Amino acid sequence: MKENEYGKTIAEGDEVVLYLDRRRTYLVKVKAGKDFHTHKGFIRLGDLVGKTFGDRIESSTGTPFTILKPSLTDFALKFPRLTQIMYPKDIGLILAYTGIGPGWRVVEAGVGSGVLTAFLANAVRPSGRVYGYEVNERFLQNAKRNLERVGLLDYVEWRLRDVGQGILERNIDLVVLDLATPWLFVQKAWEALKPSGHFVSFSPTINQVERTVDSLRKEGFIDLEAVECILRSFKVKAGETRPETIMVGHTGYLVFARKASKGDLRGKSS
Amino acid sequence: MKENEYGKTIAEGDEVVLYLDRRRTYLVKVKAGKDFHTHKGFIRLGDLVGKTFGDRIESSTGTPFTILKPSLTDFALKFPRLTQIMYPKDIGLILAYTGIGPGWRVVEAGVGSGVLTAFLANAVRPSGRVYGYEVNERFLQNAKRNLERVGLLDYVEWRLRDVGQGILERNIDLVVLDLATPWLFVQKAWEALKPSGHFVSFSPTINQVERTVDSLRKEGFIDLEAVECILRSFKVKAGETRPETIMVGHTGYLVFARKASKGDLRGKSS
Amino acid sequence: MKENEYGKTIAEGDEVVLYLDRRRTYLVKVKAGKDFHTHKGFIRLGDLVGKTFGDRIESSTGTPFTILKPSLTDFALKFPRLTQIMYPKDIGLILAYTGIGPGWRVVEAGVGSGVLTAFLANAVRPSGRVYGYEVNERFLQNAKRNLERVGLLDYVEWRLRDVGQGILERNIDLVVLDLATPWLFVQKAWEALKPSGHFVSFSPTINQVERTVDSLRKEGFIDLEAVECILRSFKVKAGETRPETIMVGHTGYLVFARKASKGDLRGKSS
Amino acid sequence: MKENEYGKTIAEGDEVVLYLDRRRTYLVKVKAGKDFHTHKGFIRLGDLVGKTFGDRIESSTGTPFTILKPSLTDFALKFPRLTQIMYPKDIGLILAYTGIGPGWRVVEAGVGSGVLTAFLANAVRPSGRVYGYEVNERFLQNAKRNLERVGLLDYVEWRLRDVGQGILERNIDLVVLDLATPWLFVQKAWEALKPSGHFVSFSPTINQVERTVDSLRKEGFIDLEAVECILRSFKVKAGETRPETIMVGHTGYLVFARKASKGDLRGKSS
Repeated sequence: MKENEYGKTIAEGDEVVLYLDRRRTYLVKVKAGKDFHTHKGFIRLGDLVGKTFGDRIESSTGTPFTILKPSLTDFALKFPRLTQIMYPKDIGLILAYTGIGPGWRVVEAGVGSGVLTAFLANAVRPSGRVYGYEVNERFLQNAKRNLERVGLLDYVEWRLRDVGQGILERNIDLVVLDLATPWLFVQKAWEALKPSGHFVSFSPTINQVERTVDSLRKEGFIDLEAVECILRSFKVKAGETRPETIMVGHTGYLVFARKASKGDLRGKSS
Repeated sequence: MKENEYGKTIAEGDEVVLYLDRRRTYLVKVKAGKDFHTHKGFIRLGDLVGKTFGDRIESSTGTPFTILKPSLTDFALKFPRLTQIMYPKDIGLILAYTGIGPGWRVVEAGVGSGVLTAFLANAVRPSGRVYGYEVNERFLQNAKRNLERVGLLDYVEWRLRDVGQGILERNIDLVVLDLATPWLFVQKAWEALKPSGHFVSFSPTINQVERTVDSLRKEGFIDLEAVECILRSFKVKAGETRPETIMVGHTGYLVFARKASKGDLRGKSS
Repeated sequence: MKENEYGKTIAEGDEVVLYLDRRRTYLVKVKAGKDFHTHKGFIRLGDLVGKTFGDRIESSTGTPFTILKPSLTDFALKFPRLTQIMYPKDIGLILAYTGIGPGWRVVEAGVGSGVLTAFLANAVRPSGRVYGYEVNERFLQNAKRNLERVGLLDYVEWRLRDVGQGILERNIDLVVLDLATPWLFVQKAWEALKPSGHFVSFSPTINQVERTVDSLRKEGFIDLEAVECILRSFKVKAGETRPETIMVGHTGYLVFARKASKGDLRGKSS
Repeated sequence: MKENEYGKTIAEGDEVVLYLDRRRTYLVKVKAGKDFHTHKGFIRLGDLVGKTFGDRIESSTGTPFTILKPSLTDFALKFPRLTQIMYPKDIGLILAYTGIGPGWRVVEAGVGSGVLTAFLANAVRPSGRVYGYEVNERFLQNAKRNLERVGLLDYVEWRLRDVGQGILERNIDLVVLDLATPWLFVQKAWEALKPSGHFVSFSPTINQVERTVDSLRKEGFIDLEAVECILRSFKVKAGETRPETIMVGHTGYLVFARKASKGDLRGKSS
């Protein structure tokens, strides 16, 4: 994400979004001599050179595509995926509920395809760091490539390691667990966090939420909140406005908590 | 939001959260000789000096309160308010859908109580800027005090000005409209934005959404999306887990769009 | 619910709804010489005699109230309650998912305040029956009075009995369990039901749903479905239409299933 | 819907549901010598004779199907459709919010494929009637066949007629409008209804709701309520319980109202 590039002229090697409509957007790299094929004809990628973002380009069949500068979100949703990814609606809750910002030191386990990692890295840069734990080496390599592509590699340190073996960092501002059994690692999270630091876990099932919340209570976390964002998209047109007929009904639940000191009062709060 | 302060010892003048349970949290300033009264007895605020975040302190009636370092979100939800505020669930969507990060230059109109302003400033620092437009001087002064309190004043430039009279900035990455008639200012947003830049508006009613979307289409914006986040909180306890009985059913709708160039193809995309 | 009474003239002893607005409706019995007091003045109940439904009557302060014929729903929501009641949105799902109609024989346990009982009795009359099980005698007496008031007493047979001791009826079309531990009574429901008959349970927590579904699978029920109706009410006004700000976020989950024969294939279906 | 047929032995000509799982259910007519083909092999429909509901039958590949007695809901969801149909969740709200029961006289416009018609007829029988208005003759003939199939034809009188030309009946208990422009027929509904009678309309878009509510207010209806049922289905399994990933996000909004007398107080209530 190099800054202030929106107004510039498009050059060889740039990545751009070709936008036809909301469901048909393509992330392509500008390359002279190469064609990009769509069901609406092909686009000569060399013809993009010299245009500016927001301009339109016609395919071989005369269909206009708009050229957009890819946002982090555009990139992340097009990342090569080896795992289920976390969706922007849920990432947004993490960003806004924790108040994460530049300078934060964050532990994320597991990294998966790196979508959340990218948003966390974007939020903590330039002075913060994301420590990305992942036990699957192939996932980790893919995530690295994804973060490199969006220019955020400098803000992540990778850990090919099971968090069950312990988190190496201390005085962490935020621990995010996006793995199958977050309740097993609540104690590890507690050890890594600063007092008053933030815990977040993401889980598809309500049972995972129950077990995680139970662990958090036992471990002395407070300010527990379990939430779900049901996102509705609308078809908007004067006189015909209505929610979309088919929607994603569920991605997962988020659990938030804060680290409290242990002591003889432990467990009394909820 | 000075960084890396979580582990430090609490000192006179610090702001801390006193946490009893999720519904009863108090943001107080540490001050020797002053008492803070709750319905569970009073707390001598001078006694907080020397403690660390995460510790507990007992009120005069023996009720334990946990001392938390206020997050940006804690502060923002306790900001003195002269207006309706935007809630974290909606702020999160803005952060994640746009991919806002350090270095972005953002126009926000109207500022209101400054809650969204604080999150935007937190996201763009240190190198970016938020240009905060507000026609009501009293609101603007209150917002300034709120931003100062969270250490984000350096990242905001204030505009006591109606966006209808034009936005002063150009090459803006993101324009957020949180005012009653966003559709009237879509053209002003277009002028201020970089090509491919992001437009967001927040509106409580579906009619505002319709009119805004209609304006955006006419003005040549693309990639339009209107969404609503229905947030459900859960009461989590083994064997008794269920959504909360009473919930906030609605705050507002968010409309997202991207600026495209105008030209003879204008209006063909949707 | 005597039929065809809407057009008639109101007489001494009739029950009527006095409607001020959606939140302020009053179910009163017409009685000469008695006053009904509201915060908008009092209404002489004798003055209602001779009016027709849909007419308006003014209170002592000149506020107009509209006189409505109470529907079954109006009555049921005003029933004296000794228990949590089932809400129309959930009752509606039961009616529509089962296709209940005249002639059905239905077991309901527990009866509680009789709200669901009234809707079931209304649906099966004149030739069907509801067998209402309730262990708490006080609840049962209250439910009886409630059903009598709406003229549906003839269609209910009352059972002051724990369904754990067995359901007395056989060849039942529908068993509805609205009690704390439905999973304990799944076998009793199986015994009472006709082959292919309908099972429904209502439970506030997801854990109850899990245990009930697990029991149903073990007992040879099929066509299992667990659903929740999230009901949103709208504030409708041209240009200001939006969902209500505060809503009921949750009442409970409904589980539906059908009785299959037991045999060596048992448990293979889901 | 002949009554009390659940326990009987299956005979030639009966309609039965063959149930494999929730997504794969087939409504077939028992006929000796005919095969029913599925992707799990074929079933000899003659072999169903003599079995009882709830029994299982194996396909040619050894896959067990359970034989269920079709409920009204099973039939209705399998009706040959020439139009969009109303779903049980929305039909349920109509049944429960109005308290419809035996003896009611109901006007429905337009009939469409007859799904709602079937539920209304089922609710008002034996002594009530549904007057089904439909302008499209092909739709009407299809609806008739559908109602005949479920044995409810005796309770419906068909009107091949535009309600804009007036509703022929008077003193109606309930008018349901399921057509594109309900606001145009609010006055016709008012004329047909008993004082205090029930009005319901179903509309996919919020704009239709606005216009209908506006008409209802002008025409002197009261007790207006606009609602939407968001139905979530759950995947239930111990330890893996979660809402279904993909769901129907929207079918339509329901508007409910009651007829009040016109007079000089008209329009004062809301």
